[in-house]
Amino acid sequence: MQQLRFRYKDKVVVNPLMRGGVLPEEVQEELCREKWLSIGYALCFDCIEGRSSLITKPNVRKHLEDIAAFFNGDVAEHTFGCRAAQFAVMHFIARHRVREEKTSNIVIADPNSHYSTNIAAEACDLKIAEVMHSGYPEYKVSAESYAEKIEELKSEGKTPALAVATHADPYYGNLAPVKEIGKICDDYEIPFMVNAAYTGGVMSIDMKEIKADFLTLSAHKSMASLAPLGYLVTTYEHSRKLFELSKEKAEWSGRAFGKKIPSLFGCSIGGLPLLSSMLSFEHVKERVKNWSSEVARINKFIDEFENLGEIMLLGERPHRHHLTHFETPVLWEISKNHKRKGFFLAEELEKLGIVGVHKGLTKHIKMSIYGLSNEEVKKVLNAFEEIIKKYAG
Amino acid sequence: MQQLRFRYKDKVVVNPLMRGGVLPEEVQEELCREKWLSIGYALCFDCIEGRSSLITKPNVRKHLEDIAAFFNGDVAEHTFGCRAAQFAVMHFIARHRVREEKTSNIVIADPNSHYSTNIAAEACDLKIAEVMHSGYPEYKVSAESYAEKIEELKSEGKTPALAVATHADPYYGNLAPVKEIGKICDDYEIPFMVNAAYTGGVMSIDMKEIKADFLTLSAHKSMASLAPLGYLVTTYEHSRKLFELSKEKAEWSGRAFGKKIPSLFGCSIGGLPLLSSMLSFEHVKERVKNWSSEVARINKFIDEFENLGEIMLLGERPHRHHLTHFETPVLWEISKNHKRKGFFLAEELEKLGIVGVHKGLTKHIKMSIYGLSNEEVKKVLNAFEEIIKKYAG
Repeated sequence: MQQLRFRYKDKVVVNPLMRGGVLPEEVQEELCREKWLSIGYALCFDCIEGRSSLITKPNVRKHLEDIAAFFNGDVAEHTFGCRAAQFAVMHFIARHRVREEKTSNIVIADPNSHYSTNIAAEACDLKIAEVMHSGYPEYKVSAESYAEKIEELKSEGKTPALAVATHADPYYGNLAPVKEIGKICDDYEIPFMVNAAYTGGVMSIDMKEIKADFLTLSAHKSMASLAPLGYLVTTYEHSRKLFELSKEKAEWSGRAFGKKIPSLFGCSIGGLPLLSSMLSFEHVKERVKNWSSEVARINKFIDEFENLGEIMLLGERPHRHHLTHFETPVLWEISKNHKRKGFFLAEELEKLGIVGVHKGLTKHIKMSIYGLSNEEVKKVLNAFEEIIKKYAG
Repeated sequence: MQQLRFRYKDKVVVNPLMRGGVLPEEVQEELCREKWLSIGYALCFDCIEGRSSLITKPNVRKHLEDIAAFFNGDVAEHTFGCRAAQFAVMHFIARHRVREEKTSNIVIADPNSHYSTNIAAEACDLKIAEVMHSGYPEYKVSAESYAEKIEELKSEGKTPALAVATHADPYYGNLAPVKEIGKICDDYEIPFMVNAAYTGGVMSIDMKEIKADFLTLSAHKSMASLAPLGYLVTTYEHSRKLFELSKEKAEWSGRAFGKKIPSLFGCSIGGLPLLSSMLSFEHVKERVKNWSSEVARINKFIDEFENLGEIMLLGERPHRHHLTHFETPVLWEISKNHKRKGFFLAEELEKLGIVGVHKGLTKHIKMSIYGLSNEEVKKVLNAFEEIIKKYAG
C-alpha cells in the first residue's frame, strides 16, 4: 500500500476554509475506535426505508430534526456538501418557479457569492444577476441593492426566480444584512436562499428571523465534520416541493421509487461524513454560544496583526466573522526580492509551524484564527513578526 | 458527546451492497494514524488550481489517471458516488443530445437498473424506456432486446438519447451482455453508459472492449472505499463536453470560474472517501486478478446453500457475480409460525455472528460471500443450517 502522509497534522492551521471544519479529538477517536471506517456503507446497515435520511439506527432522522430545529427551520436533509444543497434549491426553482410559475430564470445574488452558488445556477440553466458591493476596501453589500435590483428587473418585465445572499462571504468575511434582505424578498414575494456555509455551525442562525426560505450549510466548512457533507433546511411550506419525491414509474417493469428525492440523487448516502457530523453536533451547539467572545478575539487579532507593519484588513470593520482578508504590502515588497518570490511566505510560515495560507500569494492573505488557543494565536502573530523583521526589519 | 456504537464491527457481513466496500485494515489504520480525520477539508491543503481532481499533493490527478487506465478509459473524475456520475452523464445527454442534437429525451435502460439510474434521468427530465428481461427465475437481459427497443423507438420517429446497461444488476447479480449491447449501440450511433457500480473494482472491465462511452463506478460499493465516492470514466472524445467547464461570467463583478465543472457542482471535493480510495487502489488492482476463483467459490457456495433445504438461486446459473438472490420457501414457512415473524431470520443470524440480510424478509434473501474467508463462508452456511434444523428440522 502506498502511504499518504498528512503533512499538516501537527501544525497550526490558519486556512479560513478549514477552521470551522476541525473535528474534536474525541470524535476522531470514536470513529476510529468503533471502526466506522471498516465498511464504506457502514451507516446503512439498518436502512429499511430506502433513504439514509430516514435511518433510525443510528438515529439520522432525529439528527436531521435536531439540525432543522437548531437553525429554527422545519425540515432538513443532508446533502453532498453545501453545493449539492444549493443545487437542490436551484433545481426546485428551475422547475417550480421558472417552469410552472413562469418567472424569469434570473437569480439575484451578491457579487461576493461562493462559486458554488453560480455553478449550481448554471447547472440548472438559471442566470445570476448580481447586486453591487461598496468596493474597496470594505466590499459591503447593502439590502437596498436587492430592492433596486428587483425593481430594475421588474421594470424590464422580469420576475426574479430567487434571491440569494451569502451570509458570510468567502472573500472578505463580511456578514450580509440577511434580515433586511429577507424582509425585502418577503415584501416582493421572492423566495430567499441564504448560503450559510461559512456561518452555520460557528454562529447562531434563526431562519425565521431572517425570513429565509432555504438555508444551505456546509458541515465540513463550519460544522466540525468530515467532507463531503452539507445540509439543506427549509420550512414546512416549501419542504414538500423542495424535497419532492420521485414520481416516475418505469413502464415495463412498473418499478417506482417513491421514497427517493431526485434533486438529492435519490438519497444523499451520508456515510462517514454524516456520522462525524452527528458526533460533532453537541460540540457545535455549544461553541456557537461563544461566538461574541470569538468575534472579540478576532478583532483583537486584526488590530495586532495590522500593527506588525504595512498591513490592512479588507472587508467590514469591526469584523463580524472569522474569515479575515488582509492587504499586505509589507509582504509583497519582500517577495519582490526574495529568491522564492511569492512562495517565501508559506514556506517560512511552515518552518515556524503555521500552515494554510495560500501558497504563492503575498499581496493579500486570507486567514482565520477561529478555534485556535490564545497560545496558537500568539504563535501566528510571532511567526509573521519574525518573518517581517527578518526581511524588512 | 453522544456515542454511536457500530454494532456490526465484529460480525460476518453478508450484505451484497457492502462486501465490495470493505476497507483493508491497513487503510483504516493509515487514515487514523495520519489523522486525515482531523479536518474535514484535509485533502484540500495543497489545492491550487481550484478543483480537487487537479490536486497533486496528495496526487489526486495521478490517481484519476490511474483509475481511467485501470478501466481502459481516457479521462476520469471522482464524483459524489455513482449516482452523481450517472447524473453528470444524464446532464450531458440532456444538454448535448436532447437540446443540441434534437434527439428524443428517451434513455433506454434495463429493467434491473439500480434506482439511481432512473432517478438521475428524472432529475434531468429524461424518460426511461425499459427493455425486457426473461422473467422468473433468471431475469436475464439480452442484447437483442436493446436492438429491438431502438428499432421500436426509431419506427416512432424517436432517436434514443442514450442507452444504459447495468453491468451487474442489484436484484439478481446477472451480468448484462455489455459487449454485445455496446456493439449494437455503436452500430446505431447511440451513446452507451455502463453502470458498473457492482462490478468495477471486483472484476476487470475494459471500456474500449465493451464500447462504453461512459463508465460509472461506485467506490464505496465495489472499490473498498468510504462513502460517498464514485468515479466517472470516459473517452477523450467525450471528455471535453462531458466534463464541460463553466462558461458563465457574472455580469457586474466579471467573475468567472473556468476550472469548475457544473455537472459535478464545480468540484467533487473528495475528502476522506477519496483518500480512502487512493489508499485502497493497490488492493483493488490486485483483487480483480482473483475474480475467476472468486466466481468459483461463489458457485460452490450457491450449491451448498441450496442443499440446506427448499432454497433456489434466482438469476443466471452458473452465476457470474457475487450478488446472490435466493428464493427461500423453507425460511418463509418458518416465519409464518415464528412469534417474530419475518424478523426471526436476521435476529437468529445475528446471534450467530452473521449480519447484513435485509431485516424482516424471509421469502427471498440477498447475500454475498465476496471477500469472506473460507472459515467465514463455513460459518454462514452453518448458521443457516442450524436455524433451519432448529425450526424445520
